[in-house]
Amino acid sequence: MNEFIKKSVQSLSAYVPGEQPFGAEVIKLNTNENPYPPSPCVAEVLARAATESLRLYPDPTSRGVREVVAQLHRCEPEQVIVGNGSDEILALCIRAFVERGGGSVGYFDPSYSLYPVLCAIEEVETRPVELGPDFEWAMPDSYAASLFFITSPNAPTGIQYPKPVIEKFCKTFPGVVVMDEAYVDFAREDAIDLATTLDRVLVTRTLSKSYSLAGIRLGYAVGPRPLIEALNKIKDIYNVDRLAQEIARAALSDPEYMRGISDRIKATREHTANALRKRGFTVFPSEANFLWVKPPGIGAQELFETLRSGGIIVRHFPGLRTGDYLRISIGSDVEMDRLLQAIDQIGMHHL
Amino acid sequence: MNEFIKKSVQSLSAYVPGEQPFGAEVIKLNTNENPYPPSPCVAEVLARAATESLRLYPDPTSRGVREVVAQLHRCEPEQVIVGNGSDEILALCIRAFVERGGGSVGYFDPSYSLYPVLCAIEEVETRPVELGPDFEWAMPDSYAASLFFITSPNAPTGIQYPKPVIEKFCKTFPGVVVMDEAYVDFAREDAIDLATTLDRVLVTRTLSKSYSLAGIRLGYAVGPRPLIEALNKIKDIYNVDRLAQEIARAALSDPEYMRGISDRIKATREHTANALRKRGFTVFPSEANFLWVKPPGIGAQELFETLRSGGIIVRHFPGLRTGDYLRISIGSDVEMDRLLQAIDQIGMHHL
Repeated sequence: MNEFIKKSVQSLSAYVPGEQPFGAEVIKLNTNENPYPPSPCVAEVLARAATESLRLYPDPTSRGVREVVAQLHRCEPEQVIVGNGSDEILALCIRAFVERGGGSVGYFDPSYSLYPVLCAIEEVETRPVELGPDFEWAMPDSYAASLFFITSPNAPTGIQYPKPVIEKFCKTFPGVVVMDEAYVDFAREDAIDLATTLDRVLVTRTLSKSYSLAGIRLGYAVGPRPLIEALNKIKDIYNVDRLAQEIARAALSDPEYMRGISDRIKATREHTANALRKRGFTVFPSEANFLWVKPPGIGAQELFETLRSGGIIVRHFPGLRTGDYLRISIGSDVEMDRLLQAIDQIGMHHL
Repeated sequence: MNEFIKKSVQSLSAYVPGEQPFGAEVIKLNTNENPYPPSPCVAEVLARAATESLRLYPDPTSRGVREVVAQLHRCEPEQVIVGNGSDEILALCIRAFVERGGGSVGYFDPSYSLYPVLCAIEEVETRPVELGPDFEWAMPDSYAASLFFITSPNAPTGIQYPKPVIEKFCKTFPGVVVMDEAYVDFAREDAIDLATTLDRVLVTRTLSKSYSLAGIRLGYAVGPRPLIEALNKIKDIYNVDRLAQEIARAALSDPEYMRGISDRIKATREHTANALRKRGFTVFPSEANFLWVKPPGIGAQELFETLRSGGIIVRHFPGLRTGDYLRISIGSDVEMDRLLQAIDQIGMHHL
């Protein structure tokens, strides 16, 4: 049987997404979803959505969405591509910019665990850059790659490296830089200006986090026209559906709402970070909608399992660099209080 | 600039989708869309769709959809994969089953013009099988390829080859066979049983045509578990959005509605085919929701342009094998009458 499946696919370990316990009554702090609903504009779109129009193909270029994005970031619609989630765009970047046999892809280690999976699928070399003991970033001497993913803020650590460092890297790196800014609306600064001014820098964004629309699968990239055009050539023709385009346009037209819920999440994040520090946790400075923490007096895996048996799901990434830590998504204040209560109860026996 | 774009992508001509004249008042018979709305069940889904749930990621495995598909085709949900349109699944098949450097892909010429584009993106060899003068199918001696796309019914010709011929091919071809049954609900027979009984045959389906849901981008494949598993390993994690999954489940649960509108389209097709034959057109026997015709006394390109200037858009594929023909999607009876009237008016001057 297997002789018909490509060798690289046979040997592939697929990316493991965070658990989705459908229907179960749990507090879900494991996949960085937003605790608040999307903009009320989205409900209006659904209320007036005509099923009649669903018989027609969507605009293959997602023009309406690109126009709103261009306004938001002060660029031209031709500098924008819309994807079926930013994951699609990350995959397209490897397919467009990395030659097989010779090409290579760099990214932080640890970082978004999808990058090496995409490289394995595309059969291109990976050149991860190991972060320091506290996940600080320094490039090795004479490092080169065809494409480098800067995750900013980084996941799963939540750390955002300083803009001048990123800018210097973008200006000197001898390949294409893709800034994966999935979490940037929770951060102090963004780097979209690098994508609109430099020759080979792209910034990717998603509506899954700050816009509370993980369910519709919509992301986009901003960058120089020739690179955007190359991505357009190889994307699936009708890659984004009609409803997703309409919903995204509505949500992106209401950035005030997004900023409001992002501010609430940032406040909850700071409150939770302080509460965990008081309880002896090491908490890394987060610019995202999650915290990267090391629990005191109990292994990360054990705490993960104990919380889970109490109906609170956080994320544990086994492995040398990540196994001692937990990634905790920022939920509502009520959810985070429940988490702290659960930790305090465990604490009576363990900490 | 171009040095950063893969050579294969630089030289790529992107697939050109049929024109989508948004907002214009035209009769659109160029992209094989369904003239009737989707099942009333779809409207119910939208009416009760909670925007709240859009903040959560969709089920990455589209389990609910796979269960309905499995019931429909009497197989197990593990024999089904759901994609962002069947186009995504066609691309995945090449990525999963065709080795770069040595692997090759076969398909009819002419057939769905996306196949060679996908092969160019994946940098694998193409081995098209040229159809006869009347688009009849015969395999060349000692033909081999890693993967063969049988489009059944074929596009743009609408011809469906006899089931025994297809079955014999599937049983003897020394690679993976993907039966692209996008249009099969308008045909006399299907070959889903080959996908549920043979070792290396997959059948792909789409909700874009007979289910009248081109707008939501949902297709699926049925096939042997090891092949389905290989496709699962390399698909984008969250490839199908929440609303699309809910809508698809509703539509697939109402196959009677789909059969009803498909019957209407088939009746309109036969009526239109006869009317065109009476007017001197060569009309190929169609098992799809479109007709492949050769106009009398006027070039296909000229007729295309004349119809277009009158607000009726059909499809013309320039090229040696296809340039003398037009592909006309079956619209409503009113739309087809308007087409015939327009042809009669042109006829006074040309035919």
